[in-house]
Amino acid sequence: MKLRTLLFSTSVAVIAAQAASANEELREWAAETFAPLPSTIPALNENPVTPAKIDLGKALFFDPRMSASGVFSCNSCHNLATGGDDNMPTSIGHGWQKGPRNSPTVLNSVFNTAQFWDGRAADLAEQAKGPVQAGVEMANTPDNVVATLNSMPQYVDWFKASFPDEADPVTFDNFAKAIEAYEATLITPAPFDAWLNGDDNALNAEQLAGLELFLDKGCTTCHNGVNIGGNGYFPFGLIEKPGADILPEGDKGRFAVTETADDEYVFRAAPLRNIDQTAPYFHSGLVWDLKVAVQIMAESQLGEELTDQEADQIVAFLGTLTGDMPEVTYPMLPVETATTPRPTGEVMP
Amino acid sequence: MKLRTLLFSTSVAVIAAQAASANEELREWAAETFAPLPSTIPALNENPVTPAKIDLGKALFFDPRMSASGVFSCNSCHNLATGGDDNMPTSIGHGWQKGPRNSPTVLNSVFNTAQFWDGRAADLAEQAKGPVQAGVEMANTPDNVVATLNSMPQYVDWFKASFPDEADPVTFDNFAKAIEAYEATLITPAPFDAWLNGDDNALNAEQLAGLELFLDKGCTTCHNGVNIGGNGYFPFGLIEKPGADILPEGDKGRFAVTETADDEYVFRAAPLRNIDQTAPYFHSGLVWDLKVAVQIMAESQLGEELTDQEADQIVAFLGTLTGDMPEVTYPMLPVETATTPRPTGEVMP
Repeated sequence: MKLRTLLFSTSVAVIAAQAASANEELREWAAETFAPLPSTIPALNENPVTPAKIDLGKALFFDPRMSASGVFSCNSCHNLATGGDDNMPTSIGHGWQKGPRNSPTVLNSVFNTAQFWDGRAADLAEQAKGPVQAGVEMANTPDNVVATLNSMPQYVDWFKASFPDEADPVTFDNFAKAIEAYEATLITPAPFDAWLNGDDNALNAEQLAGLELFLDKGCTTCHNGVNIGGNGYFPFGLIEKPGADILPEGDKGRFAVTETADDEYVFRAAPLRNIDQTAPYFHSGLVWDLKVAVQIMAESQLGEELTDQEADQIVAFLGTLTGDMPEVTYPMLPVETATTPRPTGEVMP
Repeated sequence: MKLRTLLFSTSVAVIAAQAASANEELREWAAETFAPLPSTIPALNENPVTPAKIDLGKALFFDPRMSASGVFSCNSCHNLATGGDDNMPTSIGHGWQKGPRNSPTVLNSVFNTAQFWDGRAADLAEQAKGPVQAGVEMANTPDNVVATLNSMPQYVDWFKASFPDEADPVTFDNFAKAIEAYEATLITPAPFDAWLNGDDNALNAEQLAGLELFLDKGCTTCHNGVNIGGNGYFPFGLIEKPGADILPEGDKGRFAVTETADDEYVFRAAPLRNIDQTAPYFHSGLVWDLKVAVQIMAESQLGEELTDQEADQIVAFLGTLTGDMPEVTYPMLPVETATTPRPTGEVMP
């Protein structure tokens, strides 16, 4: 080997070794606050996940007949074709009413500590019971859901297969459990997981710089764990409260759940997986640009004004949280019968 | 072989031969008026079907951002999970407005002579341009659709791949052509096709009796061809006009298209494939029970009062028109960008 080649090879090797070592150091730091997605579906509380239950849950998730009008399914506002949300500030529901808060993505939501922006549901089964009954969303009742399901023999069979030990398995609780089981499968492994698991090539230099900033600036105080958020409650506007154009005064967040003054304008930290697929941002859905959202967070939560480059780098890092969607075969739903309750678009006063 | 066994075998053989011959006679009669589904996607008018175009059309079909509000996709009212329609009398659209007529199934619609209940669109490409612009449906404009598509690089690439010879392929016309190409794949081979193609076991005795009645009573005057309807215009109430509870006076059908007095209350004969999946029935969507719908048709169009058994047999035959849905992989849609027009639920006066 010629000396020049040798020297070149040596310096390449040195740089590579340095990069590897820097990567390793950053990875150790990241590992203190983040965790990669597990490779299997997590265990659910009193709800064993079986293939039959997943299939039933998928049918229910996509079935618009779970709403009073027959217009809305879970998938309407948590659309699996568009990042698991509905791409609008707040959802439009029954009677063309607007919901109060931005629809969060269903993807990876099983890893959130609690559900909804204010964490008022302990898990996805409890969550699933909410929108179906909300007057501004699906406007249905548990009784009417159960009557609808019981009217279709195919659904009754699917419930029997999903809850084999129960004499009367078609219940509103089991409806929610089946949806929870399906949603628990909606997990999207991302480049950041590959990197956390040791693949140095999964993130490029700009993304790594963004990750380092994310750790260094303190974003991780609220956005950490498997979902890079979704596991703690924090006041929006810790350092500087944003204006009503971003933080409407009428929505006091977790205060409505706990009725504790400390919880005014407190929200669950948003989980950040697939965040670049789910504009607009914040509980109000009033910010469309991810970079702007990052800058607002830095100012309001950390009192930091990011440089343009820093904001770009953090956005580049956030892009590494966008994962591969599981392939979804669109379900064939059971057909109505003479006893299926008729859809109604009527808006109750 | 013992004599008794021989006699038995002979009589079984004779009965089998008689049945086969009866089947053959009925099949010949049926073949004069019906045709099985072709085994390939039909050629479309000035719209060659390619895999790229089918994929693009599927994305567009499922994309709620094609509506002004971001709430409705083609699939909202032509839901592939529920027989290609929406299971309500008339669809609910933009601003919670109700459409004037029952949403017809998209399945096998490529075989209809013209589209809509009054045949006002010559083909599916022309049809696809209607609901997206209708104020009570998707309430969008061609310009806004094109702006939305152009704002997402992934869509632009898909249009280029689908219309490779065009310099500027992202057009409203091509939007419609791609949807037409996708819809042309939504073909559902049914037991009746198998029977028409020679499989004696595809239909049971009751279904065959229903078919014979369907031919004998004259239902085939209007309901014939590949789609058992969908290829001719006929007055609803040829013999006896039903009441306004079924035939609302305000909707004069094809009269609105041709402005010819003869076309008052004239509608395209409903195609009957998958009819038992697509209640409620008629352009008004006011009849939920298929047997009742059959009885109404017999009285109003043929002046025939069917016995209960006859109506059951015809319904049994109609069940043999329900086919196998193509497996649909739910699409992953392109993500919005800063230039994507924002959704608006606003209702224009």
